[in-house]
Amino acid sequence: MAKQEDVFKKLISHAKEYGFIFPSSEIYDGLSAIYDYGQNGAELKNNIKQYWWKAMVQMNENIVGIDSAIFMHPTIWKASGHVDAFNDPLIDNKDSKKRFRADVLLEDYCAKLEEKAQKEIDKAAKRFGEAFNKNEFETTNGRVLEYREKQKSILSRMAKSLEAEDLADVKALIEELEIADPDTGSKNWTEVRQFNLMFGTKLGASADSATDLYLRPETAQGIFVNFLNVQKTSRHKLPFGIAQIGKAFRNEIVARQFIFRMREFEQMEMQFFVPPGTELGFYEEWKQKRFNWHLALGLGEENYKFHDHEKLAHYANAAADIEFKFPFGFKELEGIHSRTDFDLKAHEHHSGRKLQYFDAERNENYVPYVVETSVGLDRLFLAIFSNALKDEVLEDGSERTVLSLPPALAPVKAAILPLMKKDGLGEYGEKIFNDLKFDFNMIYEDKDSIGKRYRRQDAIGTPFCITIDHDTLTDHTVTLRDRDTMQQERVAVADLRRIIDEKTNFRNLLSKI
Amino acid sequence: MAKQEDVFKKLISHAKEYGFIFPSSEIYDGLSAIYDYGQNGAELKNNIKQYWWKAMVQMNENIVGIDSAIFMHPTIWKASGHVDAFNDPLIDNKDSKKRFRADVLLEDYCAKLEEKAQKEIDKAAKRFGEAFNKNEFETTNGRVLEYREKQKSILSRMAKSLEAEDLADVKALIEELEIADPDTGSKNWTEVRQFNLMFGTKLGASADSATDLYLRPETAQGIFVNFLNVQKTSRHKLPFGIAQIGKAFRNEIVARQFIFRMREFEQMEMQFFVPPGTELGFYEEWKQKRFNWHLALGLGEENYKFHDHEKLAHYANAAADIEFKFPFGFKELEGIHSRTDFDLKAHEHHSGRKLQYFDAERNENYVPYVVETSVGLDRLFLAIFSNALKDEVLEDGSERTVLSLPPALAPVKAAILPLMKKDGLGEYGEKIFNDLKFDFNMIYEDKDSIGKRYRRQDAIGTPFCITIDHDTLTDHTVTLRDRDTMQQERVAVADLRRIIDEKTNFRNLLSKI
Repeated sequence: MAKQEDVFKKLISHAKEYGFIFPSSEIYDGLSAIYDYGQNGAELKNNIKQYWWKAMVQMNENIVGIDSAIFMHPTIWKASGHVDAFNDPLIDNKDSKKRFRADVLLEDYCAKLEEKAQKEIDKAAKRFGEAFNKNEFETTNGRVLEYREKQKSILSRMAKSLEAEDLADVKALIEELEIADPDTGSKNWTEVRQFNLMFGTKLGASADSATDLYLRPETAQGIFVNFLNVQKTSRHKLPFGIAQIGKAFRNEIVARQFIFRMREFEQMEMQFFVPPGTELGFYEEWKQKRFNWHLALGLGEENYKFHDHEKLAHYANAAADIEFKFPFGFKELEGIHSRTDFDLKAHEHHSGRKLQYFDAERNENYVPYVVETSVGLDRLFLAIFSNALKDEVLEDGSERTVLSLPPALAPVKAAILPLMKKDGLGEYGEKIFNDLKFDFNMIYEDKDSIGKRYRRQDAIGTPFCITIDHDTLTDHTVTLRDRDTMQQERVAVADLRRIIDEKTNFRNLLSKI
Repeated sequence: MAKQEDVFKKLISHAKEYGFIFPSSEIYDGLSAIYDYGQNGAELKNNIKQYWWKAMVQMNENIVGIDSAIFMHPTIWKASGHVDAFNDPLIDNKDSKKRFRADVLLEDYCAKLEEKAQKEIDKAAKRFGEAFNKNEFETTNGRVLEYREKQKSILSRMAKSLEAEDLADVKALIEELEIADPDTGSKNWTEVRQFNLMFGTKLGASADSATDLYLRPETAQGIFVNFLNVQKTSRHKLPFGIAQIGKAFRNEIVARQFIFRMREFEQMEMQFFVPPGTELGFYEEWKQKRFNWHLALGLGEENYKFHDHEKLAHYANAAADIEFKFPFGFKELEGIHSRTDFDLKAHEHHSGRKLQYFDAERNENYVPYVVETSVGLDRLFLAIFSNALKDEVLEDGSERTVLSLPPALAPVKAAILPLMKKDGLGEYGEKIFNDLKFDFNMIYEDKDSIGKRYRRQDAIGTPFCITIDHDTLTDHTVTLRDRDTMQQERVAVADLRRIIDEKTNFRNLLSKI
């Protein structure tokens, strides 16, 4: 456990030190669960967006992309169920005046039980190889079983009570377990009550005419309410999809794990509209397609798994997550949901407008069914970043930190490194920069030893370093260093564009899907 | 005037009919001054972003891009002056209960005076060619002069009063002019008072611990507060720049002219950090560079002009707008401001942190000066879209509507149009689609007459139509139709990628800057 935490801390500090992610408003001591993307983070994030957009919109003849506003009509969130049911169960400590998520208090309690179990196991493990003591092992096994069963019973009672909206029982459970405010130790709790996660604001100036708005908690509804406009103006027949990338906002009480769960975050969602009765076939198809999209990144198939939902949300008739092995364990990366006609029907009901499609083949009007694919851009960023970050011991015993990003996603494609600025090497480097700048994002650097400069490029994941030396001036060749193999080869300046493009083109990812 | 309005109406309806821009939440009767980008609008907008990002970040060795959050620490808006001074002067009509911007009421009054002047001129203009009547022309001239001088005097008194925060005099002016509520005719006004344009929200759940946040009204402050983090992690020396594209929000009372002034909009800003005393040279340089960036779009030099600010904002020591000729006249498209060290110093003051740079050449620490370039993405979209939309009468007397977008910005690069689906033409079209889909966003369409299909592609600005006929099956050539010339030529399928790329590559724009 300790080691995992250290790895994660190192990741966060690397992300800051190398211009990927800064705490938001840091000079004002930050803003909880909000982060800014620095110069390398913004490029990496943009490249991830492009990979998704190209794969979903550009490569599919029957998918188009839109960009709807964050502000939407408030009734939309009534129709979607967010006004009534997008809640977290909160509890206040009366002494410390601090607020907690009741479910998180219980989960944390269970995590502590698991820690205790782990300690028993660790202690017993050290006794292997000594004389066998049946009683001791039996005792340990009994305790571990007890800890595990207690966790199971707590979590299942909590789930049942939350499902039944029996918040009094959630409080009773907290009191029975004698859970205390972790900072003050006080067990003096208020009732548990539901708190809506949407951020509110007011549109318009006049007190009596101002409209209460919400910042959208998901991008999907922007697609649903535009369904007919897009279908009619694009003339697409079913099945067809609408994709969107955009910000969403959730007033999480406990937002943690760096950029994994933020209050302001970005989603990449696609709603695929299909004839009723065909949705489960498309659901299976999109599960596989989205899995393949992730695999094409090359982060390792062993780091992904499906988690099929047994309990389905009220709008779904099938649902699965693609989980990724983050530094803190397997967690949801993307959701694929067969949402039936729930959303379109709800909007028909609340708006009074028909949201039907005329199917010429079936010769009937109907409300389409929807299969949704929804991936969190920031947690995808974290997945890629955490998987790429490696400490390597080199043959000569020295160490390097390298960010082995898929080359198409790397923030900087090539670094142009004249051995020194003088003797015309700097000018030659600038000439190469100016020649390639139409095609690639690059860095030019002529300070420090070449070794140090290589290390810095490794740390931000630059696939190629181009070194300019005195020979370059006469034979127009440079040393090209590969980030991963660290091999250096002499190549003609005239070949640079082709070589860099071959390695960093999005086609490398797209052709694998 | 009427004609201009018709042109603008046609533009708005074309934008909707062809999937560029939809009124937000339309099935719920819309949300005032909020719009959604449809399938073609999203692509065009993304392409404009890419043109800006490539030109600013990728092509300049000393500019990097970031992506900071919309939520920022509230003290930032105290430091920037937005909490105290980002206001509109509002006035309510006591009878109708409607709220107005006092300055807009006065501006509208002046616009009416100008209309009257224009009517006098139009009337007199018709008398030319008849017997010369000195008295009549003299009378007309006198009236026009009077109308113009009255406007000038109103606007200058208004500006002076707003500057001095003498809101009572603004109200007095409205009453002296007997300005009435345009809908009801009532002249029963409240006092004028200032209304802050920032949208507020609350972060966190606890009533006593929730933080009052604002949705950022500009992206610039996200750059200022990250200045040191970016400078230190990128190791850039001054002068260097930080660029950003992102959403901003302003609770405009009177938001109008389609996407020109929206409550939720997107900015593309760059802050260039320079040594004190050098800022005015860089200011002139960026004015010219940004002007050239616009010119490279090919919308016509006559449609742009500079407007140098005579009265400067409190933070600026030089400022100019690049204005564009919109359907409703010349209006601000981009601002270039020499902001001095105002913002960084204000953040030093409010955060208590040093925001200094050590200049090795000067051997001193100082707070950098800043030159800003700031363009509204949505109004740039409107500029490009309105300039491109044309009705043409063809040689045979028929008409077409064509959207002559710069090819690099066109939402769809090529349409693949098999004459018919059967006989294998459809399959051949799909083969071409699959071959080119890694590189270009395309449309495939096999329904309707080829003429109708050409017109639809013209209307969304697709540079190339690729027609597949029976000859294609044997000689592997297609008919390639050019959007602008409507010329058709027979080209080999194998040459399509090169031909489309040559015309639509961003390099065509970037190399002209």
